[in-house]
Amino acid sequence: FPFCTFWSMLSLYLLPAKNGEEPTMQFLLEVVDILTNYIRKTFDRSTKVLDFHHPHQLLEGIEGFNLELSDQPESLEQILVDCRDTLKYGVRTGHPRFFNQLSSGLDIIGLAGEWLTSTANTNMFTYEIAPVFVLMEQLTLKKMREIVGWPGGEGDGIFSPGGAISNMYSVMVARYKYYPEVKTKGMSAAPRLILFTSEHSHYSIKKAGAALGFGVENVILLKCDERGRVIPADLEAKIIDAKQKGYVPLFVNATAGSTVYGAFDPINEIADLCEKYNMWLHVDGAWGGGLLMSRKHRHKLSGIERANSVTWNPHKMMGVPLQCSAILVREKGLLQGCNQMCAGYLFQPDKQYDVTYDTGDKAIQCGRHVDIFKFWLMWKAKGTSGFEQHINKCLELSEYLYTKIKNREGYEMVFQGEPQHTNVCFWYLPPSLRGMPDCPERRERLHKVAPKIKAMMMESGTTMVGYQPQGDKVNFFRMVVSNPAATKSDIDFLIEEIERLGQDL
Amino acid sequence: FPFCTFWSMLSLYLLPAKNGEEPTMQFLLEVVDILTNYIRKTFDRSTKVLDFHHPHQLLEGIEGFNLELSDQPESLEQILVDCRDTLKYGVRTGHPRFFNQLSSGLDIIGLAGEWLTSTANTNMFTYEIAPVFVLMEQLTLKKMREIVGWPGGEGDGIFSPGGAISNMYSVMVARYKYYPEVKTKGMSAAPRLILFTSEHSHYSIKKAGAALGFGVENVILLKCDERGRVIPADLEAKIIDAKQKGYVPLFVNATAGSTVYGAFDPINEIADLCEKYNMWLHVDGAWGGGLLMSRKHRHKLSGIERANSVTWNPHKMMGVPLQCSAILVREKGLLQGCNQMCAGYLFQPDKQYDVTYDTGDKAIQCGRHVDIFKFWLMWKAKGTSGFEQHINKCLELSEYLYTKIKNREGYEMVFQGEPQHTNVCFWYLPPSLRGMPDCPERRERLHKVAPKIKAMMMESGTTMVGYQPQGDKVNFFRMVVSNPAATKSDIDFLIEEIERLGQDL
Repeated sequence: FPFCTFWSMLSLYLLPAKNGEEPTMQFLLEVVDILTNYIRKTFDRSTKVLDFHHPHQLLEGIEGFNLELSDQPESLEQILVDCRDTLKYGVRTGHPRFFNQLSSGLDIIGLAGEWLTSTANTNMFTYEIAPVFVLMEQLTLKKMREIVGWPGGEGDGIFSPGGAISNMYSVMVARYKYYPEVKTKGMSAAPRLILFTSEHSHYSIKKAGAALGFGVENVILLKCDERGRVIPADLEAKIIDAKQKGYVPLFVNATAGSTVYGAFDPINEIADLCEKYNMWLHVDGAWGGGLLMSRKHRHKLSGIERANSVTWNPHKMMGVPLQCSAILVREKGLLQGCNQMCAGYLFQPDKQYDVTYDTGDKAIQCGRHVDIFKFWLMWKAKGTSGFEQHINKCLELSEYLYTKIKNREGYEMVFQGEPQHTNVCFWYLPPSLRGMPDCPERRERLHKVAPKIKAMMMESGTTMVGYQPQGDKVNFFRMVVSNPAATKSDIDFLIEEIERLGQDL
Repeated sequence: FPFCTFWSMLSLYLLPAKNGEEPTMQFLLEVVDILTNYIRKTFDRSTKVLDFHHPHQLLEGIEGFNLELSDQPESLEQILVDCRDTLKYGVRTGHPRFFNQLSSGLDIIGLAGEWLTSTANTNMFTYEIAPVFVLMEQLTLKKMREIVGWPGGEGDGIFSPGGAISNMYSVMVARYKYYPEVKTKGMSAAPRLILFTSEHSHYSIKKAGAALGFGVENVILLKCDERGRVIPADLEAKIIDAKQKGYVPLFVNATAGSTVYGAFDPINEIADLCEKYNMWLHVDGAWGGGLLMSRKHRHKLSGIERANSVTWNPHKMMGVPLQCSAILVREKGLLQGCNQMCAGYLFQPDKQYDVTYDTGDKAIQCGRHVDIFKFWLMWKAKGTSGFEQHINKCLELSEYLYTKIKNREGYEMVFQGEPQHTNVCFWYLPPSLRGMPDCPERRERLHKVAPKIKAMMMESGTTMVGYQPQGDKVNFFRMVVSNPAATKSDIDFLIEEIERLGQDL
C-alpha cells in the first residue's frame, strides 16, 4: 500500500476484510507508536501533567479536534489524529507529579495485562468462555483471603466494577445472611434494619443504603476522633439507641483507610461489638487493603480476620490499572445464595466440565469484564514482595512530606501526628493569612486558598493534588501517594509549586 | 542490553525505574508482537476457536503454565511466556466461527480504542481527570437518545458496567420518580410495588428486584406468545390483579431482543398500558438496541421513543469490545436525584470549571472505568452508516441460516417463522431420532443431543454455539450472529460440524 493511499483508507479494509492483515498490522503498530510515545512522555518530568481546557473550549473543537459523531466514516489517518488528540487533552495519571486520586501511576506490566485482556475480549461469567481468567480469579481471591487471615483462605469473593459496588455487595450479603426472605419478599419481610458507618467513611455505604431499599435515614453515621477513626463507644451507644427504638442493627462498616484522612478504624473493638450484638462486620479496605501486603504496616488492619466481608481495591494502593476491586466474603455460599436466579439459558448444568467454575450467578452483573488478568500478571512480575516494597516506599514518601511540612512556615496540619496511610492533610497559608487570629474572615479566606491554587496548578499543568472541606474544616489539601513514579524530588516540587502559586493570595 | 540479560531482568527495571525507557519499549513491543500474532490467528479459519482443557488440568499446570502466585518476582521472559500461555488456553471470541455469545468479534478500531483507554488509565467520575472522555460520553449519549427518538436527544444517561446494572438503574430511577422518599426512608415508605417483565426476559430484572428490596415475588413474569413476545393482554390482566390485591404496579420492562429467541415485545401496546395505569416503561434493548442503527430493522423497536428508560449495550450487536452498556433516561435530573449523596470530598463545587460536567454523583459507582472511548472511536471510524451495514449483514446471515435449515432433514425449528433478530433456535435430530414419534423417551434423548454435540465441538475446538432449554422445550441450539468476521461459509461450516459430530448420537 502506498503511504498516502493507505492512511486515507477506511476501517472497513482492516481485518476481517479480505487482505486485511497487512493494513491491520500497520494500523495497530501506528497506534502502539502513539501509545509508547505517550508513555515515554508520561514518565518525563519536563512534560506537563495536563493541558487544561474548559468544557466549552473542547466542545467547540480545538485545532480541529472534533468530538461530534457523524454518519460517514473517517479515514484511518483521521482516527490516528483523534487518538493523538484524545491523549493530548487528557490528564497523565501516571505522571510522577499526579497526586490527585487514590488511583495513580501507570504500571507497565499492568498495562500490558490490560492490552492483552482487551485483545482476548471475553467475559468472566462462565468457564466455557474464560477458562484461564476464571481460574486466575479463583486463585487470586484465595490468596487475598489468606492474606486477610481467614483460615486456609476459605470463603468466597468476586471482582466487581469498583469499591462502591463491592461495598454494595457486602450490604446485600449481610442482609441475605440474616434475612434471606428479603430476596423473595422484599424489605417488608424484615424489621427496620440499621447500617452503621463512620462520618469519615466512603459515601458508597449510603448509596448502597439508598439503592438496596434501607433508606439513608437508616444508615447511621458514627462519630470519629480527631484523626478520623470511629469511636467505638459511639457505635455502641447508637446500637443501643436503635434497639430501644425497636430497630434491628444489622451491619457495621469499618473503614480501613478513609478517603480523606487515610484513617483506620479500630477493627478489633468494632468486631467485639459486632459479636456482642450479632451484627455483620464489613471492612472497607478499598484504599487501605493494600497495606495488608506490608509486614510493617499491616498491623493497622489488625482484626480484619474477624470481618465477615472485606472490600479491597488493587486498583488503588497496589497500582493496578482501573478497574480492579474485590469483595471477599468469609462464609462460602452466601454470594451465590444471595444473587443466584438459576437462569437455565445462561448456566447449563449439563456441560462437559465442572460447572461449579461458572461464577456468573454469584454476581449482580451478567456479562463481567475481565479485571483479574492485569492484577495476576503484576503479582507474577513483582511477587508478593514487590507489592510490599511498593507500599513501604509510598508510606515513606508521605512520611517525608509530613516531616517536611509539619513545622514549616505557612503550613498547618489538619490533624496532629503521623498519618496512618499516605494521606497528608494540610492547609497552606499564604503570607497574607499568617499570624491572623482564627476568625470567620480568616476561615472564609482560607477556604478559598486551596481551590485557587488548584485552579492555577491545573492551568499551568505542572502537578495535581486534591482538596476538599471535611466537616467544619475549610478546604485543605489532601496529598496521597500511590504512584510508583513519585520520588522525594516530586514531593519537594509539589511544595515549591504550592508556595509559588499561593504566595500572593 | 544483551538479549539474555535483558529477558532475565525483573519488572522493576522498567519505567519508572532509572534508564527504564529502553527496556520498557522493548518489553511492550514484545507484548504487542504476541498480541498481533494472536489477532492474525484469530481471523485465520485454520486456527482452532479454542484448545479445551478441564479446570483440574489447567490447575495442575500444563506444559509449565503455572497459575499460582508466589512471593518472589518472575523474570520478564517468564511474564511473556505467561502472556502467550494465557492466550493459548483461552477462547478466541473474535474467531469467525465463534457464535457462542451475544458479544463476539474483535473490532480492530475498538481494540485500538481499548489499548488507548488502558494507557490513559483514568476514571470517569470528574471532568477534572477525564475531560475528553466525559465530553465524549455526553455527546455519544445524546446521539443515542436522538436515535431512540427523544426530541432533541434530551434526557440523561450513563455508561454502566453491563446490561444487568443498566437494568438495575432503570428500576432504581423508576422507584425514585414515583416514590422519592424511598431514598431516605427505605422501602417501608412505599406500598407493595410490582415490577413486570416477560418470562423470556433477561434475569437481571429479577436480580434487580431482589437486590433493590422489592423481592422476586413482586417481579411478575408475563406470558409470551410462541415467538417469545409478551402478550399485552396478560400484562393488563396482571396489572388489574395486582391492583385488586392492593399492590401498586410500578414498572414494566419490555424486552427488545430477548436473549434466547431474539424476540421484540410490542412496545407500543405496552406503552399504552403504562400510560393507562401510570407506570414506568423501560425497554431492555441490551441485545436489540443495535437494530435502531438500521433503517431496515429499527421498526422492530417501534414505540421505543415512548419509553422512560432504555438499556442499550453497544458491546453486543454493535461489536464494541466488552464492557460498553448505556442506560438512557428520558427525564433529566432523575439519575442525579436518585443517586447523589453530594460528598463534598469528591465533588467540590468551587472548582474553576463548570462542575455540571462532573458525572460521578449520578452513578452508583464511585470510580468508573472509561467505557466510552472505544465506542466513540468506532463510531468515528465507521460512521452511523457503518454500524447500519454491520447490523444488516448480521441479520442477512441469520436469515441465510434460517432458510438453509428450516426445511432441511434432521432440523426442527423451535418457533416458526423468520427470526426477528439474529437468533435462530433449532433442534438437530440425529438420524436415530428422526421419525420417532413425540414421546417422553424422544424428548429425553433429544435433550441430551445439544450438550453432547457442544462438548465434542469444544473438544475439537472447531466452532462454538450456545444451547439451552426454555420453558418446557428441551435443549436446543441458539445460534446468534454479531461477529463481523462471520460469512456464509462459516454458517455452512457450523451446520456441517453439527451433522458430523451428531450423526451417530
